[in-house]
Amino acid sequence: MGARVLIDRIVGSFAAKPRGVRRADRLTALLRTLISERGEATGAVLARRAVALYLGLDAAGRQHFFQKLARDFAPDRDAVLKAAFAYHANATPAHLAALQRVAEPARQEVFRRMNMAPGGTAALIKMREELLVAMKEHPELEAVDHDLTHLLGSWFNRGFLELRRIDWGTPAAILEKLIEYEAVHQIQGFPDLKRRLERDRRCFAFFHPALKDEPLIFVEVAFVNDLPADVAPILALESAVGDPRRARCAVFYSITSCQPGLRGISFGNFLIKQVAQDLHAELPNLKIFATLSPIPGLRAWTAKRTGTSPQGPAVIEASREKLESLAAWYLTREWSSGHVLDPVARFHLGNGARLERLNWMADASDRGLAQSFGLMVNYVYDLGDVERNHEEYVKRHRVVCSGAVEKRAEAAAAWIESASAVPTSNP
Amino acid sequence: MGARVLIDRIVGSFAAKPRGVRRADRLTALLRTLISERGEATGAVLARRAVALYLGLDAAGRQHFFQKLARDFAPDRDAVLKAAFAYHANATPAHLAALQRVAEPARQEVFRRMNMAPGGTAALIKMREELLVAMKEHPELEAVDHDLTHLLGSWFNRGFLELRRIDWGTPAAILEKLIEYEAVHQIQGFPDLKRRLERDRRCFAFFHPALKDEPLIFVEVAFVNDLPADVAPILALESAVGDPRRARCAVFYSITSCQPGLRGISFGNFLIKQVAQDLHAELPNLKIFATLSPIPGLRAWTAKRTGTSPQGPAVIEASREKLESLAAWYLTREWSSGHVLDPVARFHLGNGARLERLNWMADASDRGLAQSFGLMVNYVYDLGDVERNHEEYVKRHRVVCSGAVEKRAEAAAAWIESASAVPTSNP
Amino acid sequence: MGARVLIDRIVGSFAAKPRGVRRADRLTALLRTLISERGEATGAVLARRAVALYLGLDAAGRQHFFQKLARDFAPDRDAVLKAAFAYHANATPAHLAALQRVAEPARQEVFRRMNMAPGGTAALIKMREELLVAMKEHPELEAVDHDLTHLLGSWFNRGFLELRRIDWGTPAAILEKLIEYEAVHQIQGFPDLKRRLERDRRCFAFFHPALKDEPLIFVEVAFVNDLPADVAPILALESAVGDPRRARCAVFYSITSCQPGLRGISFGNFLIKQVAQDLHAELPNLKIFATLSPIPGLRAWTAKRTGTSPQGPAVIEASREKLESLAAWYLTREWSSGHVLDPVARFHLGNGARLERLNWMADASDRGLAQSFGLMVNYVYDLGDVERNHEEYVKRHRVVCSGAVEKRAEAAAAWIESASAVPTSNP
Amino acid sequence: MGARVLIDRIVGSFAAKPRGVRRADRLTALLRTLISERGEATGAVLARRAVALYLGLDAAGRQHFFQKLARDFAPDRDAVLKAAFAYHANATPAHLAALQRVAEPARQEVFRRMNMAPGGTAALIKMREELLVAMKEHPELEAVDHDLTHLLGSWFNRGFLELRRIDWGTPAAILEKLIEYEAVHQIQGFPDLKRRLERDRRCFAFFHPALKDEPLIFVEVAFVNDLPADVAPILALESAVGDPRRARCAVFYSITSCQPGLRGISFGNFLIKQVAQDLHAELPNLKIFATLSPIPGLRAWTAKRTGTSPQGPAVIEASREKLESLAAWYLTREWSSGHVLDPVARFHLGNGARLERLNWMADASDRGLAQSFGLMVNYVYDLGDVERNHEEYVKRHRVVCSGAVEKRAEAAAAWIESASAVPTSNP
Repeated sequence: MGARVLIDRIVGSFAAKPRGVRRADRLTALLRTLISERGEATGAVLARRAVALYLGLDAAGRQHFFQKLARDFAPDRDAVLKAAFAYHANATPAHLAALQRVAEPARQEVFRRMNMAPGGTAALIKMREELLVAMKEHPELEAVDHDLTHLLGSWFNRGFLELRRIDWGTPAAILEKLIEYEAVHQIQGFPDLKRRLERDRRCFAFFHPALKDEPLIFVEVAFVNDLPADVAPILALESAVGDPRRARCAVFYSITSCQPGLRGISFGNFLIKQVAQDLHAELPNLKIFATLSPIPGLRAWTAKRTGTSPQGPAVIEASREKLESLAAWYLTREWSSGHVLDPVARFHLGNGARLERLNWMADASDRGLAQSFGLMVNYVYDLGDVERNHEEYVKRHRVVCSGAVEKRAEAAAAWIESASAVPTSNP
Repeated sequence: MGARVLIDRIVGSFAAKPRGVRRADRLTALLRTLISERGEATGAVLARRAVALYLGLDAAGRQHFFQKLARDFAPDRDAVLKAAFAYHANATPAHLAALQRVAEPARQEVFRRMNMAPGGTAALIKMREELLVAMKEHPELEAVDHDLTHLLGSWFNRGFLELRRIDWGTPAAILEKLIEYEAVHQIQGFPDLKRRLERDRRCFAFFHPALKDEPLIFVEVAFVNDLPADVAPILALESAVGDPRRARCAVFYSITSCQPGLRGISFGNFLIKQVAQDLHAELPNLKIFATLSPIPGLRAWTAKRTGTSPQGPAVIEASREKLESLAAWYLTREWSSGHVLDPVARFHLGNGARLERLNWMADASDRGLAQSFGLMVNYVYDLGDVERNHEEYVKRHRVVCSGAVEKRAEAAAAWIESASAVPTSNP
Repeated sequence: MGARVLIDRIVGSFAAKPRGVRRADRLTALLRTLISERGEATGAVLARRAVALYLGLDAAGRQHFFQKLARDFAPDRDAVLKAAFAYHANATPAHLAALQRVAEPARQEVFRRMNMAPGGTAALIKMREELLVAMKEHPELEAVDHDLTHLLGSWFNRGFLELRRIDWGTPAAILEKLIEYEAVHQIQGFPDLKRRLERDRRCFAFFHPALKDEPLIFVEVAFVNDLPADVAPILALESAVGDPRRARCAVFYSITSCQPGLRGISFGNFLIKQVAQDLHAELPNLKIFATLSPIPGLRAWTAKRTGTSPQGPAVIEASREKLESLAAWYLTREWSSGHVLDPVARFHLGNGARLERLNWMADASDRGLAQSFGLMVNYVYDLGDVERNHEEYVKRHRVVCSGAVEKRAEAAAAWIESASAVPTSNP
Repeated sequence: MGARVLIDRIVGSFAAKPRGVRRADRLTALLRTLISERGEATGAVLARRAVALYLGLDAAGRQHFFQKLARDFAPDRDAVLKAAFAYHANATPAHLAALQRVAEPARQEVFRRMNMAPGGTAALIKMREELLVAMKEHPELEAVDHDLTHLLGSWFNRGFLELRRIDWGTPAAILEKLIEYEAVHQIQGFPDLKRRLERDRRCFAFFHPALKDEPLIFVEVAFVNDLPADVAPILALESAVGDPRRARCAVFYSITSCQPGLRGISFGNFLIKQVAQDLHAELPNLKIFATLSPIPGLRAWTAKRTGTSPQGPAVIEASREKLESLAAWYLTREWSSGHVLDPVARFHLGNGARLERLNWMADASDRGLAQSFGLMVNYVYDLGDVERNHEEYVKRHRVVCSGAVEKRAEAAAAWIESASAVPTSNP
């Protein structure tokens, strides 16, 4: 195969540097060819080789490779300025095309070419996962991440995703991944998972055609009689299996993203609404679509804001009224850059859900106590209201919530003011 | 559903203009919302509505809509220049991200959002098909086409395509499309197609997951004993079915693109090579992978270059030597902007194929005579050579061909020179 | 493979007889081994060989083979009598088992063994098809047919059949068979078939897992507004496609059995009722399930019974009242061995349908005129009544029909009586 | 639905008896109708009802129902004798047909009708499972079992079975059943199973189309370098995964039947040979196809035959030579009614395998020690020899074995003779 000769010629001898770095140099040289005219006839072969080279890089090689991508595959500053002048002077299609050509970093074409190889998409997702790690110490790599994110966001457009129901007839290879990824309420092996797939439960996941059998995100649903105040009965392995046609409420009790390399590319909004809509059509008896959600940032915020944090079940129990009030305040009044502080609240309120109810001791696990004194919260998705709720949130920076929650939040004002006088440990 | 209210509010009353134009205005307003912050919560609903509105536009509405896309969704000139200055002064990730943000036309986001609707991808391909028609009279729409092409090219990346074998077990709905689309050698209904799917024939197509059951491009292959000199036996409906395990040569006798809206996004290169590779693995007896291809531009070029064009079978037969020589010259010596003139030659030679043999009266149909005096040509794909051939073509502007073809081309010099003296009708 | 040696030894030399007969002898010897103890270890190999031998028989060989099956693989008369005595004296399980063992012809085990080969079931169906032909001249083969029918009837039990919808997404290889088999209203190629698969039409077929992609029987359904009186609009290729959700009536306008080798094994009863039930569930707007059926025996019966038969459109038209009366009489009053004479009437009335309406000139094709003066009839399937109708038919030998048909039948008495005086040509 | 009325009428009031018995009476009456002429029109409805009634029977009801099947659905003794006389006098097809009609118990038709209901086949398999239990105390039910077995044997003919590979991509619902059914070498949950499905292992199962996702029998295969002498490495969860293309030997280390209701209907013979053949075609490097099998009856036989049975690891280890000799004797010399005593040996030797090697301490588990002093044995399937081996076994009652095993068996003579003098506890 002629491509072999070409590759050998390209990779030349890069003898003095460490092995990983030499491999990264070889990869970079190969990518240069891949995006040149010469890469057209043998693009598939070169892309395959590039993916293999990338996957074989060690940590040093990856670091070197990312730096090269950041430095050597960026737009030319003079060319950009020239094209911008031309477009500014005369906004013709040709000038615009030229501008786009020089303003787009060459690494985007690199990624598109690598994607042509079998397994290319999976390799790019892995690359982004590793890049996100590398970025912690090398913020200059952000530009590379920007391009990868742009492409992956475009490729994982909702229109290309497939919603699949997960049940006990699903291949074990997929179920195994749910067990591995589920973070909110850990799944203790296949028997535990099986209970979560019985007829009074549902599980749905988004898949992408290029990542066969690899879920992107999944949601777990339980059918219950009413808005749930406690997560334990939902997770109980031994519970009796209910009749889905008699349930009034569908609880989204866990939503899990599976691909760290797709972080920030949001599927959850679509997933919840699509599933709510489909369940509504299938089971007209369902009247309430709601979550039972954690409040991950509550305890840390309380400690910081009030300078104290109740410890131990007894103390927590004694502080119930105060803690509930603080939680209501935290979820509705604490904003930063146009969003509420709590990440889970941000997600659901941004999607147009309504903050319905605080549930005392809804998650009495160690983790639940440590995060939020055992408090959980219901967000309600009323498909007829999400647009209005969303606008309230986005435009007027107001959290749509029930009267009970609002009352609690107002009651918190006193606690907050008195606390403000106290010096906090985290200023 | 709150989105309804929003939509109604947006669409307002656009009373005075023609119906199609009003609809286009409504669509444009909806798209503005879709790409704004407000579109996040109800994106799926709005996208669905936008696709329906687009598909319902009449000719006037489409024209109006395309103009709006070209004018109102283009990058802001001042913002571009400002971002270019900033990036030129200091090439930080933030400056680059800002540049990309303002340099990318807002219509790209429009298209990405519309793609989220069910059937969105198909609608965008249809939009491009209609845009290409509109562009003939409105070249200013080229900028819109540039963006659509960019996105479709990225979405129809080789890594997302699925190669499928087409046979008599394929759904009729797909086979019907092959019959409809095949242009080179028309298929006369299902019985004709059935012969082309027997065991001594093969047919493969690329599909995209978002266009289920809609072939993008397909290639028809015949297994024969030797490099074919005549297309008639391959197309003959009544021919005996051969044994694929005894054939030496796989002939790619027809390659057809199915989607006008994907024009210019090339799949053929990948298709031929993938199929050649797969067939090679399945049937080791196959030693030659070649085409039997038309020379669509030969007659027109001959008329223009020599000022004459033989008419009628007898005259053509009498001019065989001269016409073969001219064909060899035309295919190897006539270049324009770095490519040979003939479009089919350009495709195969650019892919790294070798021009192997001229075949006299290989297509004696009216169409064959009208295009190329009945001449056809074999391009040979030797997978071990395509890279080298491709480089010869791209870098040294040389067509790799057999000695026989080269000799013919040299012999043409005399005809060409004498002809040059003659004034031609098309200067 | 040891089986080879065995086979060779078995087949020995059968030199003097014609080739086909020798082959049949070889097959018979092989089958003896196959059902003996020696056949256990290599049963699959021997079965494969037996099927190949059978499929390779010529007419003489088949005839010889069928005779051997009839004579040499029948129950032993003495053994049967002895077992019957024993069972009569003492009806123990052991005696019953012994009786069944000797009363079952050995050829049943032959067929079960042959069925183990790949393609075995299809070969046995073909064998029965050929046997039915041979039986016309050799009624003694009936005993062989009895066994084949018994086994095929057991294997093609409703519980093993799969109902599949046929539409334009069905593989061409299956659609081609519908075109080939449809006998009632011929299908003129794929475009005609396509019209019959549009959304205001339906087609369903039974399949058996051992005969992949080979329909056993299929029914064609049209959705119309009311009980149809004419078949032409249903068959019209150019008709507008209606909305299935607005139709009141599902017409079963054609039912076709596809496998001559399964003749007498009835699937139609199940097919119609299953389809009616499924359509009822899917489209609650459907209120009437009925056929538009031919009366294949009407004209022949009329000629025989009345000694005359109107010829030519004008005469037929002039005899309308008389012919309708005779048809009503023929369908309701003419019985033989507990069944009405007309085969189509026998099928639907036996299934529990109601004879609803005679339709004048409902099938004005040559065939329609020749069979029944253009008359067709509607049988109505009212799922709540089929059991009662069936009992009337079976127990009281009464045809459940509408008042109009009954009145017509009564009016026929006069015609029939006067005709009886006339000597008929077919006594 | 008219069938409802009929059913209600049939079931009447059976008030005085226990509920289960009344239900069984109702079922019996329904079955009478089902096989009568009246059952034709509404057969599907009645069959569905009959299956539901059967599945709802309690133990008393089942017992009553089985007795009814045995007594009331048996052939009429006089009719049988009369038909036998007629056939004896004149063996016409009509007499034979009449004989078969009266000799076949009516319950066979009952079972065929019940099979028409959805889930009918599964219900009949369950019925046979329960019947086998009931037969232990009621041997008169054997006649019912004979009919069920006859039908199930015909329906589960090899020609209707589908061989499927089981791997980690198989639905969990199926894998769960392997875990449940595997008896020889228990599977400790999904992780254990996963190791058994890695690339150096294989698992295949037979399925029947009427029992979707319900394996009938499965075999587990390991690829190793040589004939294995120890089962532990094959079962080890933590072992390194080998390369199947480098293995010389395929070990069938476990074969498990899944359906107690199909006991005695043998699939194992076909399964092993089909899998051996398929693996041979896929991996030409495999030269040996063999089992590593238990000797379940060895210890019990030894105790009985020699009057002693070594206890405890040390004593066993000290008796190795004697125990190996006894095992060789037991496997080759101990026959009963034309078969060797040991059930596993009977299966493999009857299939034409060769007894190759005794393996000391090949299964040192408690169970292995208890059954056979830890001894296991290799049976080798040489596809070219199975027919010859099978004939030796069937015709000459000789076990084909290696020289080493034969030598061991001969050495056992002395032990056996001396032991014979000793009175045994089980005479």
